[in-house]
Amino acid sequence: MEGMGIQIFTIISALFAIIFTVFLAKNIMKKKEGTPEMIEIAQAVKIGAKAYLARQYKGVGVFFAIVFVLLLILAKFNYMSMFVPFAFIVGGFFSALSGYIGMTIATNSSARTTSAAKNSLNEALKVAFSSGLVMGLIVVGLALLFIGIGYTAVRWIGAMRGFDISYVASTMVCFGMGASAQALFARVGGGIFTKGADVGADLVGKVESNIPEDDPRNPAVIADNVGDNVGDIAGMGADLYESYIGSILATMALAVAAGLGWKGISLPLAISALGIFASILGSFLVRVKEDATQSNLLKALRKGLYGASIIVIIASYFAIVAILGPEHKRLFGSLICGVLAGLLIGFFTEYFTSDSYQPTKNVAKASLTGHATVIIEGLATGMASTAVPVMVIVMATIGAYMFAGGYSNPSIGLYGIGLAGVGLLSTLGISLATDSYGPVADNAGGNAEMSHQPPFVRQRTDALDSLGNTTAATGKGFAIGSAALTTLALIAAFREQVILLGGKMDLSVMNVRLLAGIFIGAMYPMFFSSMAMRAVGRTAQSIVEEVRKQFREIKGLMEGKAKPDYARAVDICAKSAQQEILLPSAITIILPIAVGIFLGIEALLGLLIGALTSGFVLAIMMANAGASWDNAKKYIEAGNFGGKGTDAHKAAVTGDTVGDPFKDTAGPSLNILIKLMSVVAIVFASFIINNTLFK
Amino acid sequence: MEGMGIQIFTIISALFAIIFTVFLAKNIMKKKEGTPEMIEIAQAVKIGAKAYLARQYKGVGVFFAIVFVLLLILAKFNYMSMFVPFAFIVGGFFSALSGYIGMTIATNSSARTTSAAKNSLNEALKVAFSSGLVMGLIVVGLALLFIGIGYTAVRWIGAMRGFDISYVASTMVCFGMGASAQALFARVGGGIFTKGADVGADLVGKVESNIPEDDPRNPAVIADNVGDNVGDIAGMGADLYESYIGSILATMALAVAAGLGWKGISLPLAISALGIFASILGSFLVRVKEDATQSNLLKALRKGLYGASIIVIIASYFAIVAILGPEHKRLFGSLICGVLAGLLIGFFTEYFTSDSYQPTKNVAKASLTGHATVIIEGLATGMASTAVPVMVIVMATIGAYMFAGGYSNPSIGLYGIGLAGVGLLSTLGISLATDSYGPVADNAGGNAEMSHQPPFVRQRTDALDSLGNTTAATGKGFAIGSAALTTLALIAAFREQVILLGGKMDLSVMNVRLLAGIFIGAMYPMFFSSMAMRAVGRTAQSIVEEVRKQFREIKGLMEGKAKPDYARAVDICAKSAQQEILLPSAITIILPIAVGIFLGIEALLGLLIGALTSGFVLAIMMANAGASWDNAKKYIEAGNFGGKGTDAHKAAVTGDTVGDPFKDTAGPSLNILIKLMSVVAIVFASFIINNTLFK
Repeated sequence: MEGMGIQIFTIISALFAIIFTVFLAKNIMKKKEGTPEMIEIAQAVKIGAKAYLARQYKGVGVFFAIVFVLLLILAKFNYMSMFVPFAFIVGGFFSALSGYIGMTIATNSSARTTSAAKNSLNEALKVAFSSGLVMGLIVVGLALLFIGIGYTAVRWIGAMRGFDISYVASTMVCFGMGASAQALFARVGGGIFTKGADVGADLVGKVESNIPEDDPRNPAVIADNVGDNVGDIAGMGADLYESYIGSILATMALAVAAGLGWKGISLPLAISALGIFASILGSFLVRVKEDATQSNLLKALRKGLYGASIIVIIASYFAIVAILGPEHKRLFGSLICGVLAGLLIGFFTEYFTSDSYQPTKNVAKASLTGHATVIIEGLATGMASTAVPVMVIVMATIGAYMFAGGYSNPSIGLYGIGLAGVGLLSTLGISLATDSYGPVADNAGGNAEMSHQPPFVRQRTDALDSLGNTTAATGKGFAIGSAALTTLALIAAFREQVILLGGKMDLSVMNVRLLAGIFIGAMYPMFFSSMAMRAVGRTAQSIVEEVRKQFREIKGLMEGKAKPDYARAVDICAKSAQQEILLPSAITIILPIAVGIFLGIEALLGLLIGALTSGFVLAIMMANAGASWDNAKKYIEAGNFGGKGTDAHKAAVTGDTVGDPFKDTAGPSLNILIKLMSVVAIVFASFIINNTLFK
Repeated sequence: MEGMGIQIFTIISALFAIIFTVFLAKNIMKKKEGTPEMIEIAQAVKIGAKAYLARQYKGVGVFFAIVFVLLLILAKFNYMSMFVPFAFIVGGFFSALSGYIGMTIATNSSARTTSAAKNSLNEALKVAFSSGLVMGLIVVGLALLFIGIGYTAVRWIGAMRGFDISYVASTMVCFGMGASAQALFARVGGGIFTKGADVGADLVGKVESNIPEDDPRNPAVIADNVGDNVGDIAGMGADLYESYIGSILATMALAVAAGLGWKGISLPLAISALGIFASILGSFLVRVKEDATQSNLLKALRKGLYGASIIVIIASYFAIVAILGPEHKRLFGSLICGVLAGLLIGFFTEYFTSDSYQPTKNVAKASLTGHATVIIEGLATGMASTAVPVMVIVMATIGAYMFAGGYSNPSIGLYGIGLAGVGLLSTLGISLATDSYGPVADNAGGNAEMSHQPPFVRQRTDALDSLGNTTAATGKGFAIGSAALTTLALIAAFREQVILLGGKMDLSVMNVRLLAGIFIGAMYPMFFSSMAMRAVGRTAQSIVEEVRKQFREIKGLMEGKAKPDYARAVDICAKSAQQEILLPSAITIILPIAVGIFLGIEALLGLLIGALTSGFVLAIMMANAGASWDNAKKYIEAGNFGGKGTDAHKAAVTGDTVGDPFKDTAGPSLNILIKLMSVVAIVFASFIINNTLFK
């Protein structure tokens, strides 16, 4: 079979990544977790995280069961391949599994990081970063294993039944649905959970009961800590797992349309497999000397990421030439466009959100004139920050298209765009590691504070934590950038799917129904954000009620004699989050189908494009405004513009609170929204084409 | 000449509207202006308004001179007809003239309204509404006169030189540029002025010097009052003048592509002319009994608007049948779609922003938990409120297209969309009247308060003012709805223009450059809003400095012995506003040209579509969030949730302050942005096609 070698190489690389994480995890677990006090604190977070995951997977399970049956029925009526329902289950399961493993390791690493910080900064960095690397590599390992095995199975069975390459590609591109559905729960539900817990804990603790932040008597405090892991580890991981799978599958589908055959299908697999090795090699570059400053720490992480990028770029060149032949080496340019786009968006995200630069300093300064001005300046900063990422994505897209030779052959141009996304995500193993490292460092700092470590330990964990904020910002930029390129590729793949299914499309942008679709698509991200922000408010309310109840019913709690029921607070919050995502999820899945049925397949394409463009812009606005408010508050707390306790600080806190649902709930949820709608369109394409009112 | 009768009818109707305003104005001026105190207060606002207009027209003059020369040069090189530069000047001049007349009458009517309120509520309503009607009718009168005479001139000279119908239509469609440029200054500059003055006056008066709001010792207080007229009369008028002209001209251009000939060109003129008479007839329905409640007042205004709508609908049916023949009576359906869309968007705007309904009550309730929650709830309300207007515009567009028979002949479908816009705007005379009535009533209330009128007078002016808030909200919905339909028609006309000029376009939405254009277009409204909001902040700062200077330098001012220099504060603020719009204006005009040159004409089309869809959504979000915060504050001030002076009230004030630049600066500016970019694309089409890097 053509390209068999690459298939095997892909599966082996994926297994290698998984085995490597076992080695990493064992190494982490060998470290000491510290004093009994430190272990106890870490233990509470572990229990909370388990409680959260148990609740989430229950909800996901029901949802998956329902959709699985639905897909089975549709497959039975020949609206899709019988493979799709099963791929849906397996893809979702692997995503959930990687989230579970990542969270388990992260919650086991925080106290160990604190403990290691007693010895040296480098050792602490190693522990926290290793934990992040477990998450990064397990995500890419399981994702690539899923695709590798799935592809082998579809090809093999397809060959036996005499199905051609188009059948294989159009079946494979439906395989992303499981990842998307699980991402919805992890990212949107997680986002609602984390900010609901945060706001609820603050409201009832600081405001009502007058106990300090992070006080162990507050039953919601562990939910708040769990939330950090949930959002930035499980949520971010599921988001990028979806992008990773989506971009590879879309590019595979586009290979067929571009006439590149089995070899073209193999290329994204090969590049992703090479990316695993590049990530692992890059990870060895992450180390610092003992007298390291914060900028040394940042440089160490950057060295790892840039190193991996350079390795994958060089290796990809040879892969392209070896697999497709020298006549296609222009595709190398497309790939570079993607890799550069990811790095550039990350960099500019940092510029707009870090308090080292002017924009966030201006937001902090606006606190001096009150609550309203800090809100206006933060919104203005978020809005202004959308220009550069949009221009980067535009240039990367046009660049990837042109390098691939899109002007003589549009189909190969679209394949080039897909490849740019694959290139951007190829180093996901290490870029996700720098991202997942943040919450571990954050929790390590919390652990150091709650267990009363000596000042030098806290100085070290603070240095690690502060770095985590920077990597979180760039990580978010990377996530939304990759979501945009992935969605572009998915939309192109959707068009191919429709053509393959014999659907007729008038793709002219002056087609009124297509225009109507763009209009609805431009509106929906705003409407969705509104639902997400309100869900946070209601979840916070449910936490407030639970905490009040525990204060009332558990005797000796306020005196510190009895322990609160942390797990129950986590469970209540998780339950509320699960309920809250039902409506937004249902609308997001039904909307593309409804638009396709009632306004036609072109309107559906317009919907996807409108949602992609507006959703991308809104997601960046919300993420950057939120991060900027957050850092402006920290900047003031560091003693600028009067410092803590002043009116300026109060105004900055208002900004931070508004920013919370922006940056951790609504903003990142839009990454999922744009991808999920495209995947739904692909999977239900046949059903829509055959049942639309506008044929 | 074919359709000559309609041409003459159009010009006569326009003249009739203008003559009718003279009669109305004389009637208003005959009324007594009241006590010397009342006259003095009104006089200060008059002087301020004149100072503002003088400054604005100076800025506009320079801008027009520069663009005129530029257009002349382009016309010299045959990139456009020689008519265009001159039409640019005349169209802009008429817009400025109507703004000048409207503002003069409005500032002369406020004290007269207060004075009339001493006699009866009905009399006060009559004065305020008559003043609004002057604005409404002068706008439609001058606009239609401009088009009527311009059309006659182009046709006549065109006939002599042997140019065909396409030449006439493609020249005429460029005639909207003057209205757009003047709208930019009036709406965007006016928006910056009004909120800069408002925020500046509050900062320096209430916060620094501890004198109450609207205190005559504050030199900025008149600037604040002037601002109300500037935004809601001159700004709104120029905005709708642009929409009115744009929708008629675009529909005329689309008539040629639809093969409807001179008759098709005449139809929008005939409908607009009929709309003038319908508006005047409707205005006679606006009257109340003396014991009228607020809901009676609203019903009176609604009766006028609905009455005019019904008249124009019936008259249009006969116009369509008489002009185009019974075989085109389906176009009547398109027209109705437009009229209904305007009314529906207005209605739902009221639902989301009035404190009689749940959404704004929820915003007020969120004030109880602090500044952050009121901001989040307001934003969520604004975001949620985008869904209905988008669905209304989508249905109106598809409806207008289908009724016109777009599925068998797409060109006539687009003509139907244009006609929907013309229908929506046909009753502009009276709908703008209900809108411009607001600031007059508002100033009348201020006058009554400052001149210490007996309670029953203030009760009456309060009733009028409160109604003004409702009409302002629906008016804003109407303005953005009409901007969307106008822009749609303009974009369609742009496409025709490009085809006529021989430009080649791959309009497929999967064309990467077109997609890139949509991306940039989706981003630009956010970027523009960021600039507009920051401009408000800087203008407020300039006012603060001027007021401080006057407090320092004018002796006896604080003791009430000397008068502040109101005109200077107005001038400083106007100057700052004029400077602040330079950069956003320049970018808005250059961006379409730059995108066309560097990314091709298809990218330009994408840009327009992206900006239209995203800008429409963002404009609604900002306008409704702002109005909702405003009314939530008023709801609390009326005694709910604790009333004035409580923490909840402070939080609500924060929401209101954030909402100010949202609803009065950035939001309405986006109406101009989407239309102006389309007009620029049309006027520069030939230049772009001949100089683009992507042919």
